[in-house]
Amino acid sequence: MVLAGRRRDPPPVWLMRQAGRYLPEYRAVRARVPDFLALCYTPELAVEVTLQPLRRFPLDAAILFSDILVVPHALGLDVRFVEGEGPRVRRLGPEDSLPVFDPDAFDRHLQPVYETVARLSEALRRRREALIGFAGAPWTLAAYLLEGGGSRDFARARELAWARPAFVEALVDRLTEAVTHFLVRQIEHGAEVVKLFDSWAGVLPEPLVRRLVLAPLGRIVEALRARRPEVPVILFPRGLSLLYPEALQLGAAAVALDTTVPPATMAAAAATAPTRTLQGNLDPALLVAGGAALAAEVRRIVRALDDLPHVFNLGHGILPHTPPEHVAHMLEVLRTAGGTADGA
Amino acid sequence: MVLAGRRRDPPPVWLMRQAGRYLPEYRAVRARVPDFLALCYTPELAVEVTLQPLRRFPLDAAILFSDILVVPHALGLDVRFVEGEGPRVRRLGPEDSLPVFDPDAFDRHLQPVYETVARLSEALRRRREALIGFAGAPWTLAAYLLEGGGSRDFARARELAWARPAFVEALVDRLTEAVTHFLVRQIEHGAEVVKLFDSWAGVLPEPLVRRLVLAPLGRIVEALRARRPEVPVILFPRGLSLLYPEALQLGAAAVALDTTVPPATMAAAAATAPTRTLQGNLDPALLVAGGAALAAEVRRIVRALDDLPHVFNLGHGILPHTPPEHVAHMLEVLRTAGGTADGA
Repeated sequence: MVLAGRRRDPPPVWLMRQAGRYLPEYRAVRARVPDFLALCYTPELAVEVTLQPLRRFPLDAAILFSDILVVPHALGLDVRFVEGEGPRVRRLGPEDSLPVFDPDAFDRHLQPVYETVARLSEALRRRREALIGFAGAPWTLAAYLLEGGGSRDFARARELAWARPAFVEALVDRLTEAVTHFLVRQIEHGAEVVKLFDSWAGVLPEPLVRRLVLAPLGRIVEALRARRPEVPVILFPRGLSLLYPEALQLGAAAVALDTTVPPATMAAAAATAPTRTLQGNLDPALLVAGGAALAAEVRRIVRALDDLPHVFNLGHGILPHTPPEHVAHMLEVLRTAGGTADGA
Repeated sequence: MVLAGRRRDPPPVWLMRQAGRYLPEYRAVRARVPDFLALCYTPELAVEVTLQPLRRFPLDAAILFSDILVVPHALGLDVRFVEGEGPRVRRLGPEDSLPVFDPDAFDRHLQPVYETVARLSEALRRRREALIGFAGAPWTLAAYLLEGGGSRDFARARELAWARPAFVEALVDRLTEAVTHFLVRQIEHGAEVVKLFDSWAGVLPEPLVRRLVLAPLGRIVEALRARRPEVPVILFPRGLSLLYPEALQLGAAAVALDTTVPPATMAAAAATAPTRTLQGNLDPALLVAGGAALAAEVRRIVRALDDLPHVFNLGHGILPHTPPEHVAHMLEVLRTAGGTADGA
């Protein structure tokens, strides 16, 4: 298995946001619920949309349909999705008390998510696809809470990280505890792999990245390895820039590359690092564009990562206006893009 | 002089967007004109706001007050600034003809900018501050045109860059021609240094970065060196991620580092590169936060870049709600932050 460090040719593949708005069958299900969070909390529908891409495409994994903000929501914070605007969160400041992590209340809130995982595990039991669970990483969740929603640069969150380091670190610690618990519960309900999305790692400068991104990710990997050593952890520290190679030192099974990362550079770093498996990193905009450039780029990425265990994926989530036939084309190209003859 | 490759201790300093909304005297001038572009095109006022920060702070350079979008505007494209929303540009697609670069019409449009540069040059003639001119880099200008304005990820611009490479490269070539001309004209009117802002270099994956960011920047540096070898060029390829060290190979006098770049990593790369002078890279959010963390971070950056010629600056523009007294504090810390004893 590739996440255990063995190469496969062609590489296994799944796609970030493979269950999503680019599929008409997803939009049909989404239209049946009042809002996005309701879809995450209705096991029957969440299972259905998770499995939809597997019916269309020869993918190697299903990823739980959910959202990273269910964790702050389960901690009692006010999280809403405003149509066309993205998430809104009640802003948290140093004048507020930290959210309380009560495992029982947290699990009660997230019971529908756990049930979704369990149903998916059952549905995939006799199939070859892996079931991937996930959570938002502590810094990314903290960034939404400190900012009060999404942002281009999370300037307010960064200001607080500098001005009130004890408060922000306590918040990140609290979220680290909740995220670790959440991932363990997903594993207990049948997740075979878990992924941490640090979508906003890239807004922080070096000293804050070390404290608020790399350190908490390392602690979660360590805690999961202690409790569930058989379950591979994938880290996605998006935007880590020149510090990306340091994510290979945290003991995870794999590191996912964002679109900006030259795969060959990371392959060179991974050759001698604790983490050798890389995931990524096609530009989702190219999946919209399609055509000969798409085929050439799939082959370039596969060749650049050819010496290492590689899970093919995008460098960011599928864009909503992606033509599904481009996904099929990409998978067909990938099937014959294998580089070496040994087929190990 | 540091931009000619000699160290100075403490390093010289200026700040991106040092003339701007965080200064009450700027807001007073801004209130006298109907919109942002009018301020750029009124020499008397543009000179005034350019010089304002020099009256308050001991800075080593003045940077022309203008906007990167004056270049597409001068090419006849519809550019507007919507209050609180940022720039709007009429979207350019492959069905459109390329903007025409007519140097005479272009210069007529930009005459007020040239006059601003000339007046600034005169005002600074007997002073020690350098006068910096600038332009948006071709890809960043193309990104605004292809997207129709600002964007978090410039997905549409990237899609076109993949789907219609000939069209996008022709557009970037056209902008390269206009930008080179614009910078030469600024130099002729008195700019002593020029800077290229590639603010959206970081939205592109490796193959597109090479074609649309690194190649055009290299061509502009080469053209300016051929025509004005005495004028240092600073490149700011924001978001270049693991490819940042490649910007040191383009023959520029200096490379500016964004907030995500660990200065020590770039110092190691610059030690043996054609470009040895680095600029940057304090987090503007820390200038808002102020206090002990600000002082510590100024010292950390200065130490990390201590072996090389270094121009202290931010890693991105000053935020509008920055307290001016924090700028004064930062400059005071910087004055005593020098690392080595030789003071070369």
